[in-house]
Amino acid sequence: MTAGRERLHGQVPVESATAAAERIPASATVAVSGFGRVGYPKNVPLALAERGEELSLTLLSGGSVGDEIDTTLADTGAIDRRLPYQATASLREKANDGSIAYHDRHIAGFGDEIRTGVYGPIDVAVIEAIAVGENWLIPSTSIGHSVACIDAAETLIVEVNETQPLALRELHDAYDIGSLPDRDPIPLTAPGQRIGDPRIEFEADKLESVVETNIRDSPYSFRAPTDSDLGIAANFRQFLAEEVESRPLYDDRVTLQFGVGSLGNALMGELADADLGNRAVAYYGEVIQDGLLDLVDSGDLAVASATSLALSEEGQDRLFDNVETYSDCIVLRPAEVTNGPEVVRRLGVIAVNSALEVDVYGHVNSTHVGGTRVLNGIGGSADFNRNAVLSVVTLNSTAKDGNINRIVPMAPHVDHTEHDVDVVVTEQGVADLRGKAPRERARGLIVNCAHPEFRPDLRAYLELAADRGGHVPHVLSTAFEGRDGS
Amino acid sequence: MTAGRERLHGQVPVESATAAAERIPASATVAVSGFGRVGYPKNVPLALAERGEELSLTLLSGGSVGDEIDTTLADTGAIDRRLPYQATASLREKANDGSIAYHDRHIAGFGDEIRTGVYGPIDVAVIEAIAVGENWLIPSTSIGHSVACIDAAETLIVEVNETQPLALRELHDAYDIGSLPDRDPIPLTAPGQRIGDPRIEFEADKLESVVETNIRDSPYSFRAPTDSDLGIAANFRQFLAEEVESRPLYDDRVTLQFGVGSLGNALMGELADADLGNRAVAYYGEVIQDGLLDLVDSGDLAVASATSLALSEEGQDRLFDNVETYSDCIVLRPAEVTNGPEVVRRLGVIAVNSALEVDVYGHVNSTHVGGTRVLNGIGGSADFNRNAVLSVVTLNSTAKDGNINRIVPMAPHVDHTEHDVDVVVTEQGVADLRGKAPRERARGLIVNCAHPEFRPDLRAYLELAADRGGHVPHVLSTAFEGRDGS
Repeated sequence: MTAGRERLHGQVPVESATAAAERIPASATVAVSGFGRVGYPKNVPLALAERGEELSLTLLSGGSVGDEIDTTLADTGAIDRRLPYQATASLREKANDGSIAYHDRHIAGFGDEIRTGVYGPIDVAVIEAIAVGENWLIPSTSIGHSVACIDAAETLIVEVNETQPLALRELHDAYDIGSLPDRDPIPLTAPGQRIGDPRIEFEADKLESVVETNIRDSPYSFRAPTDSDLGIAANFRQFLAEEVESRPLYDDRVTLQFGVGSLGNALMGELADADLGNRAVAYYGEVIQDGLLDLVDSGDLAVASATSLALSEEGQDRLFDNVETYSDCIVLRPAEVTNGPEVVRRLGVIAVNSALEVDVYGHVNSTHVGGTRVLNGIGGSADFNRNAVLSVVTLNSTAKDGNINRIVPMAPHVDHTEHDVDVVVTEQGVADLRGKAPRERARGLIVNCAHPEFRPDLRAYLELAADRGGHVPHVLSTAFEGRDGS
Repeated sequence: MTAGRERLHGQVPVESATAAAERIPASATVAVSGFGRVGYPKNVPLALAERGEELSLTLLSGGSVGDEIDTTLADTGAIDRRLPYQATASLREKANDGSIAYHDRHIAGFGDEIRTGVYGPIDVAVIEAIAVGENWLIPSTSIGHSVACIDAAETLIVEVNETQPLALRELHDAYDIGSLPDRDPIPLTAPGQRIGDPRIEFEADKLESVVETNIRDSPYSFRAPTDSDLGIAANFRQFLAEEVESRPLYDDRVTLQFGVGSLGNALMGELADADLGNRAVAYYGEVIQDGLLDLVDSGDLAVASATSLALSEEGQDRLFDNVETYSDCIVLRPAEVTNGPEVVRRLGVIAVNSALEVDVYGHVNSTHVGGTRVLNGIGGSADFNRNAVLSVVTLNSTAKDGNINRIVPMAPHVDHTEHDVDVVVTEQGVADLRGKAPRERARGLIVNCAHPEFRPDLRAYLELAADRGGHVPHVLSTAFEGRDGS
């Protein structure tokens, strides 16, 4: 396996993954590239897994990474601490049984936390790239927090992935937001604008090792949309059409973000049917999913900005075969830019994110099943829900074949507060919570979003609670009735 | 009462408060100036109160306003809906019994919500000023959301307050952040920088009426620090000294925000004793409280930026008599700038905000007593807690003479999630939650922050919960034990 001059520029120190992995101290803090399960290093983590039990690593990433890290390596017991996000069964189990200390963290600010030393010195950054030189690299299928990790790390190991086309460079805009304090504003004022360079630069003496890889990403696969998903999509489309028609803010362009996952993917896929008049449609989010690629192909999307190509394998092939064409309207940026509060607000983004459950007052649980067992993590959902001009939470009104209610009296874990949620959409309908008092929100959510079967119980709870008074009426002793052990 | 040429410039339409109040439609949406109970209109609201019951107003403000609005006017039944914040006993009671629909909302984004029409057309803005011309005014003791309100309102009533010195103009920097989408970044990159003008400009034909007032603000009064407050302050100072010493980010300057209230005021007052080396100390927050003025006087504070002079009456006199001197180091800005996520992050602010209670995993209730009865509202606390580089939550470990525990198993209302809280300080000690998994956070909070008397119960809860497993272990059936009816 020799990548040669095309990918390796200048005198870069190529060696085996095993040799590179040996350089990593047993208790190191390791920052890896990767976001949306793509663009993460594969060979070095697999070689680290050979060292297994002797290791007690703190592992930081941009976002979710694939099985080489969060399954194979995690299963050896090598990872003690993990931030800021994960999305594998193995890591999830270890976060839930406490064998890995998992800190579930917002994406937008995580780069600053790395740069300012919140997690201690970053001993080594392991970054996947499509090409590397003596003082630069070009990221592969995601950027995530690679700019911040490379900036903060004491040493750098680069994994060059030969399965990914060099043409991916056309997509990258790796702007470095810089260090705190008193840094300059991010100069981005349009979703498709380029403000940086495809290369990430670093001090040459940081580069300790270059490793070659020919393992492909192990990206998400999405389930086909259910009838309920399509019902949510139809309700959302109708709401969106009315909303954009009613506000001058959207006269020229509608800028959307969709959360990662099957529902988000389905909502994107169905967006082509929305009646948005002559408005340009832009996507400004974290990941490019297959549904988005469909919209680009059909001409329904003017521009898409993200930090990751979280496509299915077929989607990746489709993109890889036509990178030059797609680069006209797809930009990949650091997560500090895609999720940056200032940019999300400035561009007038409408955020659309899913939830595990929503309570009648609009508090959202998006991470912990039954309030206790973490599923993935908050990811960037709060970056968008808080800073978007409009935050829409979408979910099916029930789970488990209609047996579990997802519009509940009280959320047993709150990731997005009543102050951050504007509109809730289920397959039943739409509740617009904006400007409403808690009791009004409750009535709207019960009537418009809850499943009819669960409405009487919710009404009974609300009535009992309202009798006791209070701005956000509750009966604490019965708020979680029937939920223990869930 | 004739203010004359000094305050009234050009052909402005002066009339009585009664005549001005008559111009306001009975079901109007009215946006008033005011933040921190200062800088709000007085005479027009009192005249509106004469109309009383016939009115059903939606009343928006920058932040909290004084009794002329949130007591006298509210008590007549004239206010149907109130956003985004309140701080009077009368308004609180009506929010809690549901007779006023109160929507408790973040400060930072509220201006955009007004500008983009989320709350419908703003029929009239009533703004207190120290001077007015045909197409401009100069705000009085607060700016709050006046720039956004004036921009969005269809008509404008200006109340000129003669009790406030014209020299206040030296403090104002009323930068207009502009309309969405695709607006420019806020060009502020240092806490004391001026980027705007003391005047707020408007289209001349908006100005319907100018009213004169000689009623002073009814600002906060602060209780003297308790022993427990001083214990918190001592713990905070020690933590702060170590923190700034350990990170290059703070090499030149420490920039702090403190929440509004007696504890925040006490923490500021005690800051002079902190050992911060030769670092400059800056304040970048919402309000100038008396404690801050003391720091300016003693030379311990280089610069203070806020949107309101929330001083006691004595504090106001002290400032009014020396505005020219204080204007070297005090700047008043729109709340969109003081609370703007991009600025708070960019300047490297350390946020210090109080709480009603904190649960063992770090979720914070800062608004609803017993989870149900609203106290004031979230205000800007979440703007700072989320966007600061370091968010510190301060509270006494107990309430009601030690009978009520404030480090609880589960917060019955969450305003700041586990993802937004870095450090908790009580009079017992400091828990640093950064990078820690939920179970680690729980142990730290119990050992370092809970009152010794309540530790055994918290430990017992945690043990029982941990036995059931989960990333954030809970026993939902007992999480609120003993709290109903609280």
